[in-house]
Amino acid sequence: MGGDRGAEEVVAGALEAASDRVQPIIYGPRGLETHGLELVEAADTIAMHEKPVEAVRAKPDSSLVAACRSVGEGGAQAVVSAGNTGAMLAACLFNIRRLADVDRPAIAVVIPARAGPSVLLDSGANADARPEHLFQFAQMGVIFAEEMLEIANPEVRLLSIGEEPEKGNQLTLEAHALLAESDLRFGGNVESRHLLRHAADVVVCDGFTGNICLKLLEGTITTLMEGLREEISSSTRGKIGGLMIRPAARHLRARLDPDTYGGAYLLGLRGLAVTAHGNSTSRAITNAILLAARGVEHRLVERVAERFRETVLASARPEIPSPQAR
Amino acid sequence: MGGDRGAEEVVAGALEAASDRVQPIIYGPRGLETHGLELVEAADTIAMHEKPVEAVRAKPDSSLVAACRSVGEGGAQAVVSAGNTGAMLAACLFNIRRLADVDRPAIAVVIPARAGPSVLLDSGANADARPEHLFQFAQMGVIFAEEMLEIANPEVRLLSIGEEPEKGNQLTLEAHALLAESDLRFGGNVESRHLLRHAADVVVCDGFTGNICLKLLEGTITTLMEGLREEISSSTRGKIGGLMIRPAARHLRARLDPDTYGGAYLLGLRGLAVTAHGNSTSRAITNAILLAARGVEHRLVERVAERFRETVLASARPEIPSPQAR
Repeated sequence: MGGDRGAEEVVAGALEAASDRVQPIIYGPRGLETHGLELVEAADTIAMHEKPVEAVRAKPDSSLVAACRSVGEGGAQAVVSAGNTGAMLAACLFNIRRLADVDRPAIAVVIPARAGPSVLLDSGANADARPEHLFQFAQMGVIFAEEMLEIANPEVRLLSIGEEPEKGNQLTLEAHALLAESDLRFGGNVESRHLLRHAADVVVCDGFTGNICLKLLEGTITTLMEGLREEISSSTRGKIGGLMIRPAARHLRARLDPDTYGGAYLLGLRGLAVTAHGNSTSRAITNAILLAARGVEHRLVERVAERFRETVLASARPEIPSPQAR
Repeated sequence: MGGDRGAEEVVAGALEAASDRVQPIIYGPRGLETHGLELVEAADTIAMHEKPVEAVRAKPDSSLVAACRSVGEGGAQAVVSAGNTGAMLAACLFNIRRLADVDRPAIAVVIPARAGPSVLLDSGANADARPEHLFQFAQMGVIFAEEMLEIANPEVRLLSIGEEPEKGNQLTLEAHALLAESDLRFGGNVESRHLLRHAADVVVCDGFTGNICLKLLEGTITTLMEGLREEISSSTRGKIGGLMIRPAARHLRARLDPDTYGGAYLLGLRGLAVTAHGNSTSRAITNAILLAARGVEHRLVERVAERFRETVLASARPEIPSPQAR
């Protein structure tokens, strides 16, 4: 029931994603036409404007909460929603739960760049974060880059306001120190101006900063393309030129289109969850479902869990050299 | 001596700005060709990579510190530099000093939008800020918008990750409450996606967030225009179309060009200071100097001082209704 375009758009996307490999189950109202897909009836819905924690507590029979619960109970292998992201995060925390060693799940978004994709996290799950959370985001981001982007030995950089280690706010200064002394391949700080130029394989920041960046990227791309269209249509010469560059502009737009990836992972949970844009088209929903399926096939959740278990075991056994000493 | 393009570029920009109204004084090394502009010899320089506070303390005879000192001592009415922004801020704090009632000076940058300009502050002076600092930034931003952008009764909005008052981090939640109960014309939160669409007359945030936004805006515009050029030149049809839309693309680029404003104000000081991009062209330097001159003509510093004196007086006199009650 999530998504600004209504349940039909979600069903259309799920139908397109369905195959021998992927079996979508729709959580929605009684009587919804699912064209043969399994329907689990959900009596309630959570709207975009509702307060996440309150809504999730008050509506255990909403489509969002029921779908998350089915992952928590092992009924489905992943959940995808284009609904209220905050509510989805809350529903996941209550029903799928955090991995034992992860303090804060993070939203991981893939940023497309010509030189290759980066994963930016946290993109909005934690508006306030502590340095050790950023360190955990980096660890989860590395697994994500290895498994999902197929990058060997991914480089991690910390989003800040200058490349020098001493540039940043209190949070990034302390996170920089943690990352620098870890066994991660840490490339130091990176500035936001490089985000669309493959700033690093993994770019780490708090969820406030990450969300500000994502929305600014989207807004700037849209405003700029609109501005160009406007300037072009103000003269006959421009209009003809505009027709001629249309394929090139479309190609660029497609390359930067958030629908290409379709969704963002919630990392750090005991099950797999993908959140899609509220405004998702059926194509974005299809891609979000396929993204979730790839995460299941790559055993992303298990790989993150192993990484954290390793870290905990290593630091509990003093005979193993600490990361700093390596 | 600041600026990545060398002293000649700065002198060329100053020459272009010189008129009966504006008399540039150059602070630079002995023997610098200034084509008739007054030269004050400075024995030392501060490089881009130097640590601000240490460099300013160690180099009282650098061109940057000497130029700031002349404003502090009343020898010049404003200082403009394309050098190390952190060092300029430190030199201003030591030599021009804060207004008594301003806790933290802020960098104010004008963001161009088709619907009209916005002022974004803080754009990088304070990587960490408290809610009461954001409130002061808002007050200074209002004066700036009134005097420099000639907007009557400017609207203030708080940059956050959702429009609802409860969306944000601890800092913005508390700043929202302060702004909501003030006598400013506060329009609530605004998302970064609207920054290039005239998000508000005055957009307030901490310096870390503001700096991240500015650099992301710049980087995205550059990367996108490059990407479009690349896509266009990959086909003959595209190349011809590209030639035809060139005037339109140039016009858009000029509208969004940071050189149009040339510089950013440091607000909250007892004198006027404008910091220009390190990479400033002579045209950007000219515009930065004219921007500083306009600030002097509009008595910007005095107007900010008056605003803060008023605020202090109002809150000291209990018989005047408090802002909440109005």
